[in-house]
Formats: sequence, structure tokens, C-alpha cells
Amino acid sequence: MSFNAESAMRVNPPAPAQSWKGFPKYNFVGGHNDSASIPAKELAVSVTSILNREGSDLATYGLQSGPQGYTPFREAIASMLNRRAGMREDANSILVTSGSLQALSLIFDLFLDPGDVVLLEKACYGGTLSRLRTRSVEYVGVELDQEGMRADSLDQAIRQVKAKGKRPKMIYTIPTVQNPTGRVMSEARRHQIIAVAKEHDLPIFEDDCYADLIFAGGRPPAIRALDDDGRVVYCGSFSKSIGPAIRVGFIAADWPILSRLLALKTDGGTGAIEQMALSEYLGEKFDAHVDSLNKTLKTKAEAMADAIDEHFGASAEFERPKSGIFLWLKLPDAVDTSRLYQVASSEGVAINPGADWSTEETYGKKRLRLCFANPSVENIRQGISKLADICHREFGIPHHSSNTQRQ
Amino acid sequence: MSFNAESAMRVNPPAPAQSWKGFPKYNFVGGHNDSASIPAKELAVSVTSILNREGSDLATYGLQSGPQGYTPFREAIASMLNRRAGMREDANSILVTSGSLQALSLIFDLFLDPGDVVLLEKACYGGTLSRLRTRSVEYVGVELDQEGMRADSLDQAIRQVKAKGKRPKMIYTIPTVQNPTGRVMSEARRHQIIAVAKEHDLPIFEDDCYADLIFAGGRPPAIRALDDDGRVVYCGSFSKSIGPAIRVGFIAADWPILSRLLALKTDGGTGAIEQMALSEYLGEKFDAHVDSLNKTLKTKAEAMADAIDEHFGASAEFERPKSGIFLWLKLPDAVDTSRLYQVASSEGVAINPGADWSTEETYGKKRLRLCFANPSVENIRQGISKLADICHREFGIPHHSSNTQRQ
Repeated sequence: MSFNAESAMRVNPPAPAQSWKGFPKYNFVGGHNDSASIPAKELAVSVTSILNREGSDLATYGLQSGPQGYTPFREAIASMLNRRAGMREDANSILVTSGSLQALSLIFDLFLDPGDVVLLEKACYGGTLSRLRTRSVEYVGVELDQEGMRADSLDQAIRQVKAKGKRPKMIYTIPTVQNPTGRVMSEARRHQIIAVAKEHDLPIFEDDCYADLIFAGGRPPAIRALDDDGRVVYCGSFSKSIGPAIRVGFIAADWPILSRLLALKTDGGTGAIEQMALSEYLGEKFDAHVDSLNKTLKTKAEAMADAIDEHFGASAEFERPKSGIFLWLKLPDAVDTSRLYQVASSEGVAINPGADWSTEETYGKKRLRLCFANPSVENIRQGISKLADICHREFGIPHHSSNTQRQ
Repeated sequence: MSFNAESAMRVNPPAPAQSWKGFPKYNFVGGHNDSASIPAKELAVSVTSILNREGSDLATYGLQSGPQGYTPFREAIASMLNRRAGMREDANSILVTSGSLQALSLIFDLFLDPGDVVLLEKACYGGTLSRLRTRSVEYVGVELDQEGMRADSLDQAIRQVKAKGKRPKMIYTIPTVQNPTGRVMSEARRHQIIAVAKEHDLPIFEDDCYADLIFAGGRPPAIRALDDDGRVVYCGSFSKSIGPAIRVGFIAADWPILSRLLALKTDGGTGAIEQMALSEYLGEKFDAHVDSLNKTLKTKAEAMADAIDEHFGASAEFERPKSGIFLWLKLPDAVDTSRLYQVASSEGVAINPGADWSTEETYGKKRLRLCFANPSVENIRQGISKLADICHREFGIPHHSSNTQRQ
């Protein structure tokens, strides 16, 4: 009898992944970053320094630091958060995670049961939405304005959930460089969001993974910095500020929460050598690196915005990015970005269709997310031109164009 | 209103973890390894070499290798498995995981539903048993003899599960350097286990994390090497052969299984820098390192066996370890090793009580697992003497002793 693997699997196994064929020619998806900005030599110096000094500690789980993560690294993270985001952390309030994706999973696992409801921005990181769906947790989208998640809409949404007899359980927000809109929540709004959370006695999950990428520098204090009763669980990452192939994120929370997250983290710890690579890099070198990276990202953001203006003209509605690595683009109602995604994929142009980044189908259908951080300026120009060609061919939009390729 | 974190959590949140207080003085638990054997400088060379050459690839998720892991690393793993374990892998049949613990979780998630039954050795790795309990999966212990899991007992156990109307779903085995018994399954027995699996059409999960640690060198071919129809999913690790603070493991499986495991691995990839550290180390250097490590482990194993002979005398039943990092010790019926564990912990001697490593309560109650890899020879001698003191005080066993501390 030959073995039938599928019949041996659980009920409803996931569809098989496709084998990897390399990146598409025009790669505007995901959270890839600028290759030339990677501080590879400095990371190698940090690893080598620590391995030469403390390498024998690799013989024990968690080095000599226990399961929360390498202590000098947690101290460096705390110092960075206090310096950059106005927080008041120390090594004990930090849990190092295997990327912020593990942080998301741990926090959702600790707080949420099937049927619970999470309040979040109506345009929201797709990985959050998919993780909530996997847990059979519902989510309700809250309106955004220029200052971020609206506090009045949040309050109203919570009341509506309660009126339906459901249990609002958590406020999830990306306040600083919101994904995908890039908006930065004002300090005043942060206080308002905390007030709403207090009013309804809900925890706030502050996902701050993009917070270092404000092109002009500076940022408002973290929501966690403004909270005084341990209501905010915070996560961050080095995927966006350094590079996503390094899988190191972190959670900052008060001990009543952190101790339970630690109990759920049964992975034997996060990789020691990844932590070593960042550990001696997080001070002044990191700040200088982020300043330089932001200059590069600004150049690429402008190149993409210019290319969209040129090739999509009045068909495209968007804000010129002042932060982050994404541009959130709205096209006319006639366009279905999920279909555009499929056709463009087959022609080497990768985009994130808005449906994956939205709580509402009609809102998401005409929107798409474009990452400008990884491609070169020239590749951005060519790719946006090609995307406009494809969009025109499929939907008759953009109508008018100066692009001779579309004549 | 002050925030009550616990009331905001899910139903039945886990108990909080304790904050870490450092390792106990006599640390005979877990899978810690020999500090002096860590090849820290060579790992630093490997990281630095690759970062200097390919560091800009950190800008993309998965480097330029896709989600299965860094391609040169997967090639090196495949080559190592083919060379050392008689397997026939290539980079496409390898999935790099964040430690073998992630491999366990992924494989259990793919194959098992609540109520399914897994067949495994009656003395078995505690992390496997706890993961199955968390999933509400049942397990049935199979007898072991000197050649490993008994094929006749396995067949009988499967038939009994079926007779009860339950669904046997997987055979899980640690055939090479079994945890905790240290036994190595003979090649003949491997063929017999495959035959039983075929007879009942079950997959085999071969957990081979300790397989490099046979003191005399050499090992039988992996079960996966002897299987011809893709029935075996295999996992390995570098925690035992290099050091557990490095969180890199791997799965080897045919594509119908591997592609689904990959679909379940939604962590953004395993840390690139961890993979780089091992990537250029896995050839001749690795083989020489393992030979040297085995010599050290043999010395420590003998020190522990001698100390047990000296301090426990005829009260202790055990096999002198010829492999691995553990000694599996049986004490007389009067001893309850779970109580011994509690008392010893409070006095700085850490042991793994047999109950956590067994499928049967009465079998586990009088057994314990001792790790000899991390402590020094002198620390082993002192710690075993102290453990005998505590055991004598609590249970009147060992009766006679040459240890003056107990006069």
C-alpha cells in the first residue's frame, strides 16, 4: 500500500504552499526593505564581539539570561524605547520574541477566545486580520482620520458590539506609521483612545513595528508611555528598521501580562545569535542608521508617488507618504484590486490587494498597498508604469495617459 | 478604574511564569550542553563570512531563498543527513524551523485532531507529551527493549486502540539515542517498525534530535532513509550537537507533507543570522566537533554513573550511558520522584521527575532523568552526593552509604 499523506492529516489541512520561484520582477508587496541600507558589517561585529566573549553560554537554553531573552539585549531595547518613544521600560518588562509575528500570536492567544470581538483600524495589517480569523475572533473596523484611529468612532463601535450582545475584548491599533495608511496618531488622540479604553475597561494592544520610520524624524510618545495602569501591551520589531530576515521582535508589558505571555512561549527561547547581532548595535549606531534609512525611504516614496501621478493621473487618490514603507492607493469604483492583483502577478508585478488589508469589502476592493522600500527608483518607475498598463487594459482606468506604452 | 489584566484574558489563561532566578547550583535538568565544547569562534567566522558577502539580502523576508530557509544552509543540512544518516535529501526536502520544538508543533498541527491517538515509547520526551495534551490528543505508551520501541508491542497497541473505537493517527519515535533511555534502535527493528506502519497505514514521525551523540561514533540509518513511500516525517536539531541557545531545527519530508507544513509556518521565516552561523560550519568541522563533543560527554556520563554507584549503590538501577546527555535512573518503589524533585529543587538540585517523561504514572513515579552534559565532573559528583542525601532523608533510600555526609 502506498502512503497517502493527505488522508493521514487532520480534518481540513491547509492548502499546500507553492514551491518558491524567486521574487517577482516588480516587487511591491510585503515588508521588504532597502538592501543598500542593511548594516551587515556592524551586525557581524556585534555577533563576533559577543560570541568571542560569551559564546560558551550557548550551551544553555536562554544563555545565562532565562527565557525572556538575552539580558543585555533586553536592556538595550528598554533603553531604546525610553529614548525614542518616551517609555519607562527595563529589562524585566521586555520579552524578546521570534519576530513581531510571534508577539501577535502570543498576545492574541492570551486574551482572545473564539467569538470575542477586537476593535481595530478599518484599514489594517493583513497578518493581524488573518490571525484573528484563524482564531474565530471577530473584528470591527474603526474610522481613521489624519490623527489616526478616531476615538469617537471607537467608542461608538464598542457600544454597537455590546448592543449586539457580543463581547468587545481588545483595542488593537497601529498608532505610529499605521499600516497601510502611514498615518501617525497625535498625542492628544492617544490620550483619547486611552480614555475610551478605560471607560470600557479594555486592554490596548499597541503594535508599533513601523514607528522608527518617520522621514522627518521624531515621533509622539507611545500609547504605553501615556498609560498609567498597565492596560497597554506593546510590540515592536527590527524587521522594518533593520531587515525582515532577522526574526527578532519584542513585547513590553507589565508583569501580570508579561508573565502569562512567557508561560505561552514554549519555543525554548528566541535565537541567541540573532539577539547578539542586534545587542551591541542598538545605541547611537541604531539611531544614526534609522536617520539614514529614512532619507533613502523618502526618496523612494517620492519616486513612487511621482510615478503614480504620472501614470495614473486623476484616477489615483493617495497621500504622499511621510513615513513607513507603504503607499495606500485608492482607484475608482470600477477597479477590483483583487482581480488586478491576479493579473499583475502573472505579469511580474506584485501588489497587495486592499481586500486583505481592510475590514470592509467595498472599502478594500478599490484600494491596494504598494511597498516602495525594496525596489530601486528605476524599478519603481517601470513597475508603476506597467501596473497602470495592466489596470488600463483590465478596467479602462486610468483613462488618459502620457505613457506611450499604452497608446 | 484600575486595570485588572487577568479579567481581560481568555478563559483559563495559563498560570504566570516565575521570573527567572538563574540556574540551580546542581543543574541536571533540560537539554543543556557542555560549555567548553561550544565552537563559538567558528560560528562567528561563519556569520561574518556570509554577512560580508550577502548581508544586503537581510532586506528581504527569507533572504533570496524563500520561506523554507537559507538555500546554502538547507543544502548543508541535506548533505549532513545523507552523509551521517544514510538519507537522500536535497534542499527542496528540508524546511528550516525555529528549533525542533517548532517542528514538533507544526507536525502535530498538521496531522492531529483532538481525540486522535499517537503511539510512542512509554518513556518519552516530556515536551512531546505536553504538546499532545495541550491539543487534547491521546497517547499510548509502547514497550521498549534494548533495540528500541518493540514492533510487536506497537502492533498490539495499535490494535487495542482500534478495538476501543479510537483512531490511531501517528507513530512518534525517537529511535536514535532515545530520550530519556538513550537506546539506539537497531536497523532490523527500524524495518519492522516501518512494516507495522505500512500494515496500519500510519505516518511515522521520527524525532532524531540526539542522533549525533553516540559516543563510539556511527549510527544506524534513519528510519526515513529506509522508507520508500514518503511515510516518514523527520526532524532534527542543532541544540544537542552545538548548543540549545541557537534555535535552529529542521524537518525533512516529501513535498506532499512539507508543502503543508510550510503553509502552517506563518512566522515570517526562521532567523537568518542563526542560519548563517551554522551554514558554513556543517561539513568536516561539524563532524570533528561532534567526535570531540562525544568524548567529553562520555567522560561526564561515566562520572555521573560512578557517582550514582557510589552514593546510591544497589538502590539505583540504570544503564551506563553510551550516548546522549541523559541518564535514566530507576529507584525503589518507596521513592516518589515527583516529591524528590520538589525537595531537591528547594535545595539547589534540579532533576526531571519521571512522571513528566512517562506515559504511565506508576512507571514514571520511581524514575528520574538526569542530564550530565552541562555540569562539570566535580559538580556532578557533589550534586549526586547531595541528591542521595536528600533521597535518604525523605525516603530512607539509599539504605547504606559510604558517604560520610550522611552518617
